[in-house]
Amino acid sequence: MGNKKSAIDLNCDMGESFGVYELGMDDQVIEYISSANIACGFHAGDHNVMKKTVGLAAQNEAGIGAHPSLPDLNGFGRRKMDISPEEIKNILTYQIGALSAFARSEDCTLQHVKPHGALYNMAAENYELAAAAAEAVKNIDDGLIFVALANSELLRAARDAGLDAACEAFADRAYTSDGTLASRSLAGAVIEDAEKIKSRVVRMVKDNEVKTIDGKIIEVEPDTICVHGDNPEALEIVRELVQTLQDSNIKIKPMRDILQKN
Amino acid sequence: MGNKKSAIDLNCDMGESFGVYELGMDDQVIEYISSANIACGFHAGDHNVMKKTVGLAAQNEAGIGAHPSLPDLNGFGRRKMDISPEEIKNILTYQIGALSAFARSEDCTLQHVKPHGALYNMAAENYELAAAAAEAVKNIDDGLIFVALANSELLRAARDAGLDAACEAFADRAYTSDGTLASRSLAGAVIEDAEKIKSRVVRMVKDNEVKTIDGKIIEVEPDTICVHGDNPEALEIVRELVQTLQDSNIKIKPMRDILQKN
Amino acid sequence: MGNKKSAIDLNCDMGESFGVYELGMDDQVIEYISSANIACGFHAGDHNVMKKTVGLAAQNEAGIGAHPSLPDLNGFGRRKMDISPEEIKNILTYQIGALSAFARSEDCTLQHVKPHGALYNMAAENYELAAAAAEAVKNIDDGLIFVALANSELLRAARDAGLDAACEAFADRAYTSDGTLASRSLAGAVIEDAEKIKSRVVRMVKDNEVKTIDGKIIEVEPDTICVHGDNPEALEIVRELVQTLQDSNIKIKPMRDILQKN
Amino acid sequence: MGNKKSAIDLNCDMGESFGVYELGMDDQVIEYISSANIACGFHAGDHNVMKKTVGLAAQNEAGIGAHPSLPDLNGFGRRKMDISPEEIKNILTYQIGALSAFARSEDCTLQHVKPHGALYNMAAENYELAAAAAEAVKNIDDGLIFVALANSELLRAARDAGLDAACEAFADRAYTSDGTLASRSLAGAVIEDAEKIKSRVVRMVKDNEVKTIDGKIIEVEPDTICVHGDNPEALEIVRELVQTLQDSNIKIKPMRDILQKN
Repeated sequence: MGNKKSAIDLNCDMGESFGVYELGMDDQVIEYISSANIACGFHAGDHNVMKKTVGLAAQNEAGIGAHPSLPDLNGFGRRKMDISPEEIKNILTYQIGALSAFARSEDCTLQHVKPHGALYNMAAENYELAAAAAEAVKNIDDGLIFVALANSELLRAARDAGLDAACEAFADRAYTSDGTLASRSLAGAVIEDAEKIKSRVVRMVKDNEVKTIDGKIIEVEPDTICVHGDNPEALEIVRELVQTLQDSNIKIKPMRDILQKN
Repeated sequence: MGNKKSAIDLNCDMGESFGVYELGMDDQVIEYISSANIACGFHAGDHNVMKKTVGLAAQNEAGIGAHPSLPDLNGFGRRKMDISPEEIKNILTYQIGALSAFARSEDCTLQHVKPHGALYNMAAENYELAAAAAEAVKNIDDGLIFVALANSELLRAARDAGLDAACEAFADRAYTSDGTLASRSLAGAVIEDAEKIKSRVVRMVKDNEVKTIDGKIIEVEPDTICVHGDNPEALEIVRELVQTLQDSNIKIKPMRDILQKN
Repeated sequence: MGNKKSAIDLNCDMGESFGVYELGMDDQVIEYISSANIACGFHAGDHNVMKKTVGLAAQNEAGIGAHPSLPDLNGFGRRKMDISPEEIKNILTYQIGALSAFARSEDCTLQHVKPHGALYNMAAENYELAAAAAEAVKNIDDGLIFVALANSELLRAARDAGLDAACEAFADRAYTSDGTLASRSLAGAVIEDAEKIKSRVVRMVKDNEVKTIDGKIIEVEPDTICVHGDNPEALEIVRELVQTLQDSNIKIKPMRDILQKN
Repeated sequence: MGNKKSAIDLNCDMGESFGVYELGMDDQVIEYISSANIACGFHAGDHNVMKKTVGLAAQNEAGIGAHPSLPDLNGFGRRKMDISPEEIKNILTYQIGALSAFARSEDCTLQHVKPHGALYNMAAENYELAAAAAEAVKNIDDGLIFVALANSELLRAARDAGLDAACEAFADRAYTSDGTLASRSLAGAVIEDAEKIKSRVVRMVKDNEVKTIDGKIIEVEPDTICVHGDNPEALEIVRELVQTLQDSNIKIKPMRDILQKN
């Protein structure tokens, strides 16, 4: 059965510069992607960067998303912390609110929320944290799309909360046979070969399946594919992936459009 | 002529605790005031404190306001900084957005914005900064009330931007004959005598006038009076002031109601 | 056998104010204690508070100690974080260095280092983290005393590194029969009765033993007892404890003196 | 007369990365310079970056210096702030202490202190702030060299305090006829032509003179020349400058050696 698509969303982390520090090739990758996950100041980004990045996304008609994080600028939001579900709600509320004000100032609305880094990983495995995150999003605006790893607690919590959930797959990450991401510590967990990345994405979108790290075929039904724009090689892969998708008659559209088609 | 009122708003800074640090007697002063200026994390407050304080204001039917600051937690937002009008807009957008998400989560809307500390003082004297602040507020929501010192550039900028402006007077600060606040370095600039504070406020509200530090009578037409709740003495003054206003048949109402009466 | 003493050190966390936020009754508790653990800006304290607190300790002839923390001002250093041993070394080096410059400015030297909060608890249970902390201290100054929980990995690592280690016991915390602290979540884990606290401390110092939470008698040989000065009740307990120790002919001396007697 | 030299120090700001953010070509420029001004966490740098940068400087036998800043990570320490002389002392003490602990951990000692950005500029024009900075340095270690702009209040304050002062000139900045730096807002204030930079530096070192922005010749006696390594063009200029100095029989040595020759 499945949910085979003739269109897919490409999402990319953006707005991760801070003060004088520049990170990411936002100006270039924005031309290829359809949804932007914009840092909200807790792991990267600052009020000036957010203003600029929201403007860039608006101008390029990318869906605007909040990319909230644990409060950890020095660790780029990648360090797990002992944090209560109640506080998870508050850090999401704060950051989503901040970003949505920049969107409103550009006469745009927020499309989605995608937790960042350690927060995403912690909530993907812990239903209580995931439910807190989903509740925070719902309390702000129940029309927001919640981006969640396929087969994760995040996805389950978003659906339990009645939120629209965009099921996310990763272009360059291997899967285990239970449908979750293979740990980065495993050989082959991160895929660097552009040809392999492209063919995997097309297969995930058109056939709703992916070959796991141990050679099995599992089902996956992504609404959105996570790509990267933080270095020239990553940008080149995105460019080629977009070409491949177009050659395969798969349209690239913001996740709002993908979910509405369902 | 003037704008003599049978009602006035009392506004108070709130939510200025941070982490384990407690500041202010919010739970008690909230019973007496009608509008709460809630810290947004840049000079005080954090996401947990904001959540709690917005809930407290909502429960007590006080008008909910953002109290954005220069980014200076260690200096409590009291240190002037060299900051561009463009950045002023961004720091206001960020903080107002963050607070408004907590309000939305409580099914409330933001009533007003009052810049804090050095930001308020800098913008009160500098039209360019004041105009940037007003523009930021307008771009987020042109229905927000902008709280501005009487006779200041803040007030002028808010009105030029077409925003509703609440003209603010201070219960415990002396005025100069040009209608601005006397510098704290002058003897008599801060009024500590409760009787004097009460009679001055009643006179400002009922007669639209105040005696200046050098003995003249000037006109002032406040929509809102700033009071304090950060220590027991301040709290007692607020209690007495509320009693005095009630005895004088002056109602205490959120600034939204005060402005709509005009 | 054991190490029965006629003198003991009382250590207390100090300098935990920040900006306008005041925490702790440092001015009063300093008269009773012999070693001050001074916050270094990562969980509390700031450069102004550190200057003042080092001066206060110097004036009262208390041993001056660094109280370094995980980087977590909003969580007061109480949240466990995923942090590498290499980074543990660097955060200790940074904070110990900062505090020691204030000590040098007062013509004093640093006496000791006591990790704070989650860092103390994590390293007490994890030898690798504890060894990193001990190595950082040793690389800065191998004459510094390392304060470590009795029977912990911290104590083992400090001794393995060849550092002087001050074995710490807690006046108000119950022990399990394996000699470690009973979890705060257990009933009776935190002792609030002043009489019980006093008699326990005297017994620990004079007889090198303590009754555990499940009624056994275990050996403990403290060089220093941790007391608190963050509220009037805690201060009163310290006052009474000092009186009791004096009545029991136990002198109160900085941990440097206690260790040299051994 | 003057103080014509056959040797000069080249100083360069280093260690200005932060977390995942990389800034500067430290690994490359370190081969050409003789003194490193290392960020201390207030405008850039963090405990991990400081550890690495001190190690890099030590390995390359560059003089190790603290580069303390106003507390302004987001503004890179470039924004002037309203800050008291007393606080200036404390922010310098904190940062110099932190950096010196990393130096001690590498069995090195701190050579110098050079205030950064807005702090340098504010103190260059304000004797009271400059005197506070000099006092802080002296209280920590009166053997530290204080790097100060030629003809500035910084230089005067350092000498009044009895500190060794290294008189600093800028390779790429034009001077006014009163011996101070021409404002960046003036055309020609920043010199980008490599040939011009090289000939100016040689003339400053060998002849103790420089042509001002309005064509006069003034005296300047630098002990150290500030160069940059934050982009490939800057690095190339440093490379060429070093070659030119060697061709002119001017040795490049840490400022400690330069001052001792006097």
